[in-house]
Amino acid sequence: MTDPEYDFTIRRLGQAHVPSPLGLSSELGDFIANYVGDEELVQYRIDVNANSAPLQSTELLEKAGPRQAIYFDPAKVHAGVVTCGGLCPGLNNVIRAVVMTLWHGYGVRRISGVRFGYQGFLPERRLAVKELNPDVVVDIHRLGGTMLGSSRGGGERTSDIVDAMEQLNMNVLFTIGGDGTQRGASRIAEEIARRGSKIAVVGIPKTIDNDLSFVEKSFGFETAVSRAVEPVTSAHTEALGCIDGMSIVKVMGRESGFIAAHTALATNDVNFVLIPEVPFEIDGPNGLLAHLEKRLDHRHHAVLLVAEGAGQELVASGGADLSGNKKLGDVGLYLKERITAHFRAKNRELNLKYIDPSYIIRSAPANPIDAVYCARLGSNAVHAAMSGRTECLVGLVNNRFVHVPMHVAVSRRNRVDPESPLWRDVVEATGQPALMRN
Amino acid sequence: MTDPEYDFTIRRLGQAHVPSPLGLSSELGDFIANYVGDEELVQYRIDVNANSAPLQSTELLEKAGPRQAIYFDPAKVHAGVVTCGGLCPGLNNVIRAVVMTLWHGYGVRRISGVRFGYQGFLPERRLAVKELNPDVVVDIHRLGGTMLGSSRGGGERTSDIVDAMEQLNMNVLFTIGGDGTQRGASRIAEEIARRGSKIAVVGIPKTIDNDLSFVEKSFGFETAVSRAVEPVTSAHTEALGCIDGMSIVKVMGRESGFIAAHTALATNDVNFVLIPEVPFEIDGPNGLLAHLEKRLDHRHHAVLLVAEGAGQELVASGGADLSGNKKLGDVGLYLKERITAHFRAKNRELNLKYIDPSYIIRSAPANPIDAVYCARLGSNAVHAAMSGRTECLVGLVNNRFVHVPMHVAVSRRNRVDPESPLWRDVVEATGQPALMRN
Amino acid sequence: MTDPEYDFTIRRLGQAHVPSPLGLSSELGDFIANYVGDEELVQYRIDVNANSAPLQSTELLEKAGPRQAIYFDPAKVHAGVVTCGGLCPGLNNVIRAVVMTLWHGYGVRRISGVRFGYQGFLPERRLAVKELNPDVVVDIHRLGGTMLGSSRGGGERTSDIVDAMEQLNMNVLFTIGGDGTQRGASRIAEEIARRGSKIAVVGIPKTIDNDLSFVEKSFGFETAVSRAVEPVTSAHTEALGCIDGMSIVKVMGRESGFIAAHTALATNDVNFVLIPEVPFEIDGPNGLLAHLEKRLDHRHHAVLLVAEGAGQELVASGGADLSGNKKLGDVGLYLKERITAHFRAKNRELNLKYIDPSYIIRSAPANPIDAVYCARLGSNAVHAAMSGRTECLVGLVNNRFVHVPMHVAVSRRNRVDPESPLWRDVVEATGQPALMRN
Amino acid sequence: MTDPEYDFTIRRLGQAHVPSPLGLSSELGDFIANYVGDEELVQYRIDVNANSAPLQSTELLEKAGPRQAIYFDPAKVHAGVVTCGGLCPGLNNVIRAVVMTLWHGYGVRRISGVRFGYQGFLPERRLAVKELNPDVVVDIHRLGGTMLGSSRGGGERTSDIVDAMEQLNMNVLFTIGGDGTQRGASRIAEEIARRGSKIAVVGIPKTIDNDLSFVEKSFGFETAVSRAVEPVTSAHTEALGCIDGMSIVKVMGRESGFIAAHTALATNDVNFVLIPEVPFEIDGPNGLLAHLEKRLDHRHHAVLLVAEGAGQELVASGGADLSGNKKLGDVGLYLKERITAHFRAKNRELNLKYIDPSYIIRSAPANPIDAVYCARLGSNAVHAAMSGRTECLVGLVNNRFVHVPMHVAVSRRNRVDPESPLWRDVVEATGQPALMRN
Repeated sequence: MTDPEYDFTIRRLGQAHVPSPLGLSSELGDFIANYVGDEELVQYRIDVNANSAPLQSTELLEKAGPRQAIYFDPAKVHAGVVTCGGLCPGLNNVIRAVVMTLWHGYGVRRISGVRFGYQGFLPERRLAVKELNPDVVVDIHRLGGTMLGSSRGGGERTSDIVDAMEQLNMNVLFTIGGDGTQRGASRIAEEIARRGSKIAVVGIPKTIDNDLSFVEKSFGFETAVSRAVEPVTSAHTEALGCIDGMSIVKVMGRESGFIAAHTALATNDVNFVLIPEVPFEIDGPNGLLAHLEKRLDHRHHAVLLVAEGAGQELVASGGADLSGNKKLGDVGLYLKERITAHFRAKNRELNLKYIDPSYIIRSAPANPIDAVYCARLGSNAVHAAMSGRTECLVGLVNNRFVHVPMHVAVSRRNRVDPESPLWRDVVEATGQPALMRN
Repeated sequence: MTDPEYDFTIRRLGQAHVPSPLGLSSELGDFIANYVGDEELVQYRIDVNANSAPLQSTELLEKAGPRQAIYFDPAKVHAGVVTCGGLCPGLNNVIRAVVMTLWHGYGVRRISGVRFGYQGFLPERRLAVKELNPDVVVDIHRLGGTMLGSSRGGGERTSDIVDAMEQLNMNVLFTIGGDGTQRGASRIAEEIARRGSKIAVVGIPKTIDNDLSFVEKSFGFETAVSRAVEPVTSAHTEALGCIDGMSIVKVMGRESGFIAAHTALATNDVNFVLIPEVPFEIDGPNGLLAHLEKRLDHRHHAVLLVAEGAGQELVASGGADLSGNKKLGDVGLYLKERITAHFRAKNRELNLKYIDPSYIIRSAPANPIDAVYCARLGSNAVHAAMSGRTECLVGLVNNRFVHVPMHVAVSRRNRVDPESPLWRDVVEATGQPALMRN
Repeated sequence: MTDPEYDFTIRRLGQAHVPSPLGLSSELGDFIANYVGDEELVQYRIDVNANSAPLQSTELLEKAGPRQAIYFDPAKVHAGVVTCGGLCPGLNNVIRAVVMTLWHGYGVRRISGVRFGYQGFLPERRLAVKELNPDVVVDIHRLGGTMLGSSRGGGERTSDIVDAMEQLNMNVLFTIGGDGTQRGASRIAEEIARRGSKIAVVGIPKTIDNDLSFVEKSFGFETAVSRAVEPVTSAHTEALGCIDGMSIVKVMGRESGFIAAHTALATNDVNFVLIPEVPFEIDGPNGLLAHLEKRLDHRHHAVLLVAEGAGQELVASGGADLSGNKKLGDVGLYLKERITAHFRAKNRELNLKYIDPSYIIRSAPANPIDAVYCARLGSNAVHAAMSGRTECLVGLVNNRFVHVPMHVAVSRRNRVDPESPLWRDVVEATGQPALMRN
Repeated sequence: MTDPEYDFTIRRLGQAHVPSPLGLSSELGDFIANYVGDEELVQYRIDVNANSAPLQSTELLEKAGPRQAIYFDPAKVHAGVVTCGGLCPGLNNVIRAVVMTLWHGYGVRRISGVRFGYQGFLPERRLAVKELNPDVVVDIHRLGGTMLGSSRGGGERTSDIVDAMEQLNMNVLFTIGGDGTQRGASRIAEEIARRGSKIAVVGIPKTIDNDLSFVEKSFGFETAVSRAVEPVTSAHTEALGCIDGMSIVKVMGRESGFIAAHTALATNDVNFVLIPEVPFEIDGPNGLLAHLEKRLDHRHHAVLLVAEGAGQELVASGGADLSGNKKLGDVGLYLKERITAHFRAKNRELNLKYIDPSYIIRSAPANPIDAVYCARLGSNAVHAAMSGRTECLVGLVNNRFVHVPMHVAVSRRNRVDPESPLWRDVVEATGQPALMRN
């Protein structure tokens, strides 16, 4: 299976002829940072097979960063910021960086925070649009969540949203959100184009599950992993602290098991990791239950870490929420019940503890590394918008900040490849069977 | 309601005529710590009413600490340590302190850790008794849980346990556990007395809920409160991050709401605290639901903190676990369902999040202040046992370490007095109604 | 040496005849918290000698808490809050609690924060007095330091300060600070009395060193100890990570070694603790250097924890700062130099690391337990002032919140008694010699 | 200035014909991880200029990972692990991963930890070589430092070291250390080649300063940044808490300012960052002192963050330590003195605090993200060695784990490019002048 070829061309609102007020340099060797030129690109595919013909890629991404000539006159900019979907560590950091860069970098003085996601644009929800400036945002990064509030859905009301933006004279919009949000933002940008309006829509991709493509690492992901460590350590302590102790910890990961995989590697306390990408069976000689029994026989304790989207073939119920995410069956409780029943049927002692840290993980403030990342995502998004780019988001590819067209970014999901080094290292570190299937 | 008069006399195994090897001082002014004399007491009741007759108390507790003359010859001591019941921060610190004081202080060289609570003494569970020494325990305090393992029940098998101790030639036993454990230990001490054996049984009281009397503050309690802060902060962040957000956090507290009360005061984020000691109604104009509605009307978000034993008159189911603790109905899920139904019936938007940090709280390693406290509890327990005291535990009364007879300590529970300064400060800090009853 | 008898009578501005707006109860059994009566007292001395005559104390302290009748009409109160001296964890929590209790509890609407300590009152420093209300203080407890700023000195300008208060029509002042601050506050209260003014001055005692009498535990102390643990752990790690490693950590503690003593007990990593209360010698067969050598011989690593005020007889230089605190010689650097020189002279390898965490410790936000304590200190201070009490501070004696006359509170310092259980436990836990003197 | 072309060819000890015992897959689609083929490469340079000729690189790096055929028979392997130089978060994690992969993955049963760096190999230091196995290393990652101890120097004694390895029959050596260590390891590999011995030498690059090339991010770096945040927050709190407060924090960074740059971005509290790569002047209208004055005029507080290697042109003293690192002048104290003197000369109030967290930063245990990284570095190093590769280290290039020849890796240093996006974002975030030079 090879990926399709991507067209990474970024749409622009028009010619950039306003000189940037940033005061950077355009020469090397003067110790002053340089503007990024439109000709600076990054190669997307870099994996080479020595036995094949040499790689000669046409898939090249624009580097993000400040341009010497910008499109918008800062004095005429009214920028909006909106956060959508579930909470994620770092939302406030991104908001802060967007506001600070607009204000101190470009001198923009009209910045509005749209309350509670796309819903804040809708006529029936006349929710306050909050004025933002450095004083308002200076300390928001110290807290988790989003100072603007968030919500699911609303993004499908494209026309209402563009109407609202036009009423507000808003000519720049920053959409901080996941797959559904950026899909909505892409539609908004299309509607704007259809109307011939000059409004830039730039996304900052948010997904605590790390499942967005062209974003090597999503902001908040490291914080989420760090937060998931504590419940796993607790699970381990509980399992060790009683006779035949077993603990199950459920973590986020609807379609991708990155949080579970990294948490397992981070703790060294997990014996079985279950993720959506790797199917498993419960029964049979090579099923989970048989392996749990063997583990208790030999080590008298066990820790299971399960991503919420794992084993959906066993528990899925159907339906979807307002963001269009499918409703998941509760694999954690399913495992708890099946394991309890199995050991009871065998008349075998088992002390099972179930831990669901749920919102504790996603509502954390960004840890320092995520804080750095959010700060840079936010300022690069501003540079993109001020240069007149639209329908794009700021990504991280091969360790460079780049621009990615929104419709390309949402065209596929990032998932744990079961045959990749990451999953290999997880299987090796946990000692679990390579595959639990009969 | 006044308390009964307590008899705080501590039982002793016999005359203490072995000189202590600790090398402390018996004079003042030499900068060297002094032995504690048997005549050093602490007054129990200290609350005085200026309008009444002057207080002249006969309720006096012995001060804990090393005695100049001890009962046991350290060379002939075989000490046992057992941890019982649920996990609690600091168990390993107490084990460590007991071992270190026995070994380095008194020169005792036979110390056994009994695995998995009283069960470890029973014939059908031939679980290893683990040899303990400084090398084994030196780093155990860095981890939560108990290195010995724990279990519920078994303490009612008094005769089997004393048989096992006699077989092991164990003449000192440290019982680290709660109400049920110390009740069992008291029976063990009685059985020992009946047999005319010279075995000291000294308890270190453990109760994460802080519900033991004569122990101003139970070890692990401060850590538990500190750990409960994070889920509450998460709950607050979630409630603020959406439209009409409400969060419920359930914390430990079967019969006593100390963790909930302190956590509310520690965070300033809680709007309603529900504890076992203060009854509340759900319905009616002064019921919880009505107050939640008012809160959302005015502030658009709310955080509830509920102790697991609150509102049992609404949800109790009957039954008991192996430790003899009554089975609790799940008040957290009850509230979640009742609140959801109430707002749905009114066709009113509500974004409700339910957080149950469960084992994350109790499996933590002791925080520094608990670590200090555990170290001191453990060494004082050793001093008590070496001096020949038995059927007593080490308590903290009016900020002094004291000896308390086991049967007195378990004769009543420590509970939050709804009319006390503590609960007053909670009600004032949360702004909740003084009483939610119609 | 026996303590003098204390007169704990609290001065009052006049008759309290305004009914309290708090809406508490005056009957038992109604589940509603009760007002505290003026007749409710706490016995100060509770240590009893069984061989002596029974204790019949006349030293009784008033319990703190809200009174049914108060002195001030809340509508006419202009309250001031000032923070003085060095930073301490919890300052913002206390400010917050004072403001919240005044505003939400009593309905006071004029509250001023005096900037930068007593200096804020002085004519030559026309620094803004900042208006305080719930919106301003709601989140301040999440940060360390003091939102009002602080400074040393100024308190000796009694007359200027009372002039300023009168100009501002300020009739209640909360002074948050240490020894020097409360001494100043006592003089301010005297000057007010002399002028016949009706201004209440109530102190909240602050001392990170825990060296104030009648305050069992000073706010911020637990946080400070918790913060000191990390550098000590680092010191231990460094000492273990090289050949013949030794680490010195210097912590706060000008006249009292409580932080050092508790940190040593909390970590189990310290081998030698040096505090101001216990003199030690450097040279000679029983001096520190000889014992360090022995330690390296046997264990190949060592950790020293030294309170900044230790060994001043060896390093003191004379002089005092603006708060009147004597200038200390730098015992940490002295030890570093002496130890280095000693091992070099013996041509013996030594890898010495010196760690001075300095401000990292005192600038921390309050940990959860300190947060609870600060909240309660602050609200009790408000209750005291509203009832018309003055020249007193809120203390904690035998685990009860009480009123203590300021001049009594500053009449002596709390110090680690080298012959007390605390120091005994430290010496036992570290294994250091009982006394390093020849 | 363009980089030289690198030759990334990895030296191998011989033909790999032993089948790997790992049991991985060699087909796609079976959900089982695959071996890495020798033909799998990664392109090094990926920055493309749209105006130039298309990139056609011959600089390709081998991907790290397990090979289907290995060189060593695991039954005949005696592996050694050595940690050298200063402490760094994650050392124990790497040791653990190496041992676990050798033992559980390949079945190697002879693993020796060399104590105290290369010194442990030298004849005059007959320090114990410690036997390593899963029981010994299972919990070491919970603590900072290195369980093996470390030291500087010794690596220049190539012949002695190879002698010692031959005496020990050691045929695999893992060298965990920085520039100097890997330079030594390269010489050791050369000496081995000269003797015709079949010993693999594989390095795991360690540098808390993140200054090794071909290692995008060094292990422990993220932890170091996270740890540096607390002192900076303290510095900010102190600066705000007094009149005209200024704080200086010194962090690690001898030749590279990565820690300082990232810490500034992570905290948003720093106003001036000084790093080795960007020269600055103290005096004059565009010097640091003038800008500090302006800052105090406008904001009344300031925080400076200085990397230890900054401004060496002002303070350098000459000389080098045992690792060959040049001795640095103390820029922190220099700044403290110069700033104090400057404000005193102007008779201007200044409250200056100086914070040097020193060893607190580097002795921390790895944070969860570093833990994941260390686990993967360690297991990839084992795969490299078992496959017979030598004189190489495991690097991370464009987000892929790769093999890098040791002599190439040490041929240049990674430094903050003052004209790069990173430094641009720092200057933008702090608001400091682009360059402080007259």
